[in-house]
Amino acid sequence: MDVQYPPVVAPPHKSSLQKFKVKLKETLFPDDPMRQFKGQPFGTKIVLAAQYVFPILQWLPQYSLKLFKSDIISGITIASLSIPQGISYAKLAGLPPSFGLYSSFVPPLVYAVLGSSKDLAIGPAAITSLVLRSMLTQGVSATSQPQLFLQLAFTSTLFAGVFQAALGILRLGFIIDFLSKAILVGFMAGVAVIVSLQQLKSLLGITHFTKKMTIVDVLSSVFSNIHESLKKPKYFWVSAGAPLLSVITSTAILFAIRGKHPAILVIGKLPEGVNPPSVKMLYFEATHLGLAIKTGIIVGILSLTESIAVGRTFAAIRKYKVDGNKEMIAIGLMNVIGSTTSCFASTGSFSRTAVNHNAGAKTAMSNIVMSVAVLVTLLFLMPLLHYTPHVVLGAIIVTAVIGFVDIPAAYRIWKIDKFDFVVMLTAFFGVIFISVEYGLALAVGLSILRILLQITRPKTVMLGNIPGTRLYRDLHHYNQATRIPGFLILSIEAPINFANITYLQQRTLRWIEEEEESMKDNSVFRFVILEMSAVSNIDTSGVSLFQELKSALETKHIKLALVNPLAEVIEKLTKADESDSFIREDYLFLSVGEAVGKLSSIMENSPSVTMQQEQPPYM
Amino acid sequence: MDVQYPPVVAPPHKSSLQKFKVKLKETLFPDDPMRQFKGQPFGTKIVLAAQYVFPILQWLPQYSLKLFKSDIISGITIASLSIPQGISYAKLAGLPPSFGLYSSFVPPLVYAVLGSSKDLAIGPAAITSLVLRSMLTQGVSATSQPQLFLQLAFTSTLFAGVFQAALGILRLGFIIDFLSKAILVGFMAGVAVIVSLQQLKSLLGITHFTKKMTIVDVLSSVFSNIHESLKKPKYFWVSAGAPLLSVITSTAILFAIRGKHPAILVIGKLPEGVNPPSVKMLYFEATHLGLAIKTGIIVGILSLTESIAVGRTFAAIRKYKVDGNKEMIAIGLMNVIGSTTSCFASTGSFSRTAVNHNAGAKTAMSNIVMSVAVLVTLLFLMPLLHYTPHVVLGAIIVTAVIGFVDIPAAYRIWKIDKFDFVVMLTAFFGVIFISVEYGLALAVGLSILRILLQITRPKTVMLGNIPGTRLYRDLHHYNQATRIPGFLILSIEAPINFANITYLQQRTLRWIEEEEESMKDNSVFRFVILEMSAVSNIDTSGVSLFQELKSALETKHIKLALVNPLAEVIEKLTKADESDSFIREDYLFLSVGEAVGKLSSIMENSPSVTMQQEQPPYM
Repeated sequence: MDVQYPPVVAPPHKSSLQKFKVKLKETLFPDDPMRQFKGQPFGTKIVLAAQYVFPILQWLPQYSLKLFKSDIISGITIASLSIPQGISYAKLAGLPPSFGLYSSFVPPLVYAVLGSSKDLAIGPAAITSLVLRSMLTQGVSATSQPQLFLQLAFTSTLFAGVFQAALGILRLGFIIDFLSKAILVGFMAGVAVIVSLQQLKSLLGITHFTKKMTIVDVLSSVFSNIHESLKKPKYFWVSAGAPLLSVITSTAILFAIRGKHPAILVIGKLPEGVNPPSVKMLYFEATHLGLAIKTGIIVGILSLTESIAVGRTFAAIRKYKVDGNKEMIAIGLMNVIGSTTSCFASTGSFSRTAVNHNAGAKTAMSNIVMSVAVLVTLLFLMPLLHYTPHVVLGAIIVTAVIGFVDIPAAYRIWKIDKFDFVVMLTAFFGVIFISVEYGLALAVGLSILRILLQITRPKTVMLGNIPGTRLYRDLHHYNQATRIPGFLILSIEAPINFANITYLQQRTLRWIEEEEESMKDNSVFRFVILEMSAVSNIDTSGVSLFQELKSALETKHIKLALVNPLAEVIEKLTKADESDSFIREDYLFLSVGEAVGKLSSIMENSPSVTMQQEQPPYM
Repeated sequence: MDVQYPPVVAPPHKSSLQKFKVKLKETLFPDDPMRQFKGQPFGTKIVLAAQYVFPILQWLPQYSLKLFKSDIISGITIASLSIPQGISYAKLAGLPPSFGLYSSFVPPLVYAVLGSSKDLAIGPAAITSLVLRSMLTQGVSATSQPQLFLQLAFTSTLFAGVFQAALGILRLGFIIDFLSKAILVGFMAGVAVIVSLQQLKSLLGITHFTKKMTIVDVLSSVFSNIHESLKKPKYFWVSAGAPLLSVITSTAILFAIRGKHPAILVIGKLPEGVNPPSVKMLYFEATHLGLAIKTGIIVGILSLTESIAVGRTFAAIRKYKVDGNKEMIAIGLMNVIGSTTSCFASTGSFSRTAVNHNAGAKTAMSNIVMSVAVLVTLLFLMPLLHYTPHVVLGAIIVTAVIGFVDIPAAYRIWKIDKFDFVVMLTAFFGVIFISVEYGLALAVGLSILRILLQITRPKTVMLGNIPGTRLYRDLHHYNQATRIPGFLILSIEAPINFANITYLQQRTLRWIEEEEESMKDNSVFRFVILEMSAVSNIDTSGVSLFQELKSALETKHIKLALVNPLAEVIEKLTKADESDSFIREDYLFLSVGEAVGKLSSIMENSPSVTMQQEQPPYM
């Protein structure tokens, strides 16, 4: 008892405006992006600002031949993956193959100027392409109205870009955090199932005609190893080369046997030349505007989720930083520009970024190299793709999406958190049986509901003393913890607000009644101590809980003490406590140990105080 | 250092099913309603069950003449208030006056059998009547389609009852908690403004013709004191008697001057007799079914909010208990039965309950007495109401709703919590400028958004040692707290989940970087301690935060220690931690004091460990 505890006091005063500023900063600028500008001369500030907006200005001045050697190898490597994937994903998006190549030309150039990741490989991705088609076909058919469908694809890409850039500018990037790992695992697996079933249909149809060639079997076995080998850097050349090799081989075979197997559909003649402008194709008429906006938002969110996650993963490996909000602006502008140059929604693809990284990419220059390779294809190599069979594109698609089914991740989620597993299943079945957007919305809704339920039904835990220490911990967690006679020590483990005061009051009173019932041997139960360290926040309703609890306890001649209320909580209690009834020194303690010590000594020093007395002297 | 701390271990094992059961019980049965049945013989259980369903069986067998004397006085008192208010609120609901009396006859009888409050006075209330009309008039006009409007009023009342009973049976009563005090203050004030403006129009119109009588002035001054006097029990007879007195006086005057002032609208002839059945009037056709359901739900929630709050307030004063979920079933059934006997939505009215309590009501018998008084009115006194002027009903309505404007409560909310004040204003302006349901929805949405924002941006606080103790508290709250060189001690004050891991990671790394920057004098910064007492929960994403933080810190040769992770958190970390990398004794501590003590002694005992070393021996 020789320890001197300071009194529990309200924190130093701050005005509401000051507090609002701090909160706003923590909400929107938790990374404090302006920190680097502080105390710099004006000239430096200009340079830093330019570098902030255009990260290419950071690395290009120091760019060396050695870096370029690495970037050219990785750039050509991802180009060899981007070209077959580009035309495959265009097919997945319901668009002609050339638009996949257009989308692999302009967006990587824009990203190279604006983006801050050194590893991200830009272009169309399976997930966004599929979602784009599956949502747009709710309003327009890709096959019977191809022109309108194309227009809506560009318009959705524009809205996706605007939405992405807006999230970044308004610093609302945390919205993508609501697509949790569990949701993504379920959602991606659901998408994989849908896409595979779609493609399988055409693959099986073809197989019937190509038994002798067994091209599908070969391709499947080649591709099935891609995602394995991505994790083993030395085999990554196999993954990187396989799609191009398959396209070349199959195209060569089809060219050789041309005309003999009319059932094998080939791509056909493709237009040569770079991206045609598409500003005039943007479609803003009311009939489909809502659909385009909705599709843009969903595609935009998914594309950000993939880009940001991939960018952060590789930044962490190579120990540099990507600023989420800045990346959102870069990707958003990239899609806005893309939508005016015949590109559909592009993003940082996971598989190609992994290849890019493993092939030794050093800067965003590898995206420029890839762009140039795609440009060469667009200008000179388009006739070569004439005989590329659709079946090989289907195989590329299926291979890409099969990697989306992440059984180990699903098992891990099951093991750690059953509710997350349910969220995952909701996303999975929602996507398969309802639709992409409702599947996602249901899963996000369920995740939010869980948070609300946790708030509505916060845990209250009974604490006991850990022998030999002054610590008090959960009795159900630490078996050695023992109760202190005469005290009921409860820990409230959530913010106290309108959503849970009724529950907390009922639950606390039940603790107290059970305590009274168990005390029939006339031993004295005199103190309820609420440990408030975990009550991070309180609102006006929360304040009333203490007033009501206190008056309920007073009639039972039980004293209520609060332990370690945090700064904000104590401040609000002080403001609400006009009659000065519980913000008093004999009411507030800094630790449970202190509270038990001081209250016990009061009990010992006033032997005349019994439960029969109307008003104990220390109340 | 002589204190022996036990190791931090996972809590005793429980299966997922056991945990699910506990959670389900805490979520749906926090009050443990079955407690009283435990260990009772079968016969007693039957009696207890019957009393549980029909609380009248609890008090009627012990009912005495003495109690009846009190109840008859209070019953007649509230009848004298119910009759004028009933016809006024029927007007407010857009219904003929007699339905206000019907609704003051059947529902109180039903409640007397099923309800557990001893004070609640049942009948139509201003707020539900207004909401009923304002929502139904979105689809049907009360004046040009009175019959359909009446049908929809009964149908909405049925749905309100079904919804209320369902909430009670499914034990989802906590849903009404989402209408926080702040929302209700704003909402009620908004409703008061709307109603007053509506009534003022007719009041002013009338005033023009009644200058000589100044009846309005008289009434207004009488009524304006009602809500004041409700809080002073000895004047409550004034409040209780004023409406009836006004009705009698004005009716008598109008009767005397009948025909001479045709501009003064009177109620006119009313049908005599008890409630006609209305089962056949229930309207289930698709045209307006959605509106009826929506209106039923909103009216049902508002009626529960008023009833439960009023019931709990007076139960607390008289120290008995009302079970929220059981009350919801009682009120729900009351409205279901009401909808088949020509009653519109009824509830426990605040003003009449206060009068009932002050007049000395002892049991729900006072509701039965009131019913009988209303019955007598219905059977014999209807002709007397012929000449009651509408203006007096308008005055009664305005008086009732003026009490809804609670300026002191609004000021209190402003003082304690600015955000709650914004929520209040949202409800207020939403109701006035948009609509009842959107005003409520906006305000509830804003409250939920705030909770989500608190989760998305949890506070992280830097702790320091309180000199002379082993306690560590917020440096910004306790000025005397001092930092320990070499340690960065952070407290995370929220559950860790998908919505905040990105933020927490960024924010923690920023703390660390700022710490490194401030350490340019080559002093050693070696330990980050995370105090986890306030982390009440964690999900699969949350687990990954620790893995990522740990690997980020390892490259900086900083050790990460966790203090007092709670049972559920430690359990999930253990499950996720396959490589046994952070659920290790040298990583986990029971208190910050212990962590600092043990880690400091490690630092002293291994002087060779410097920041340049690749892998410190204790990692």
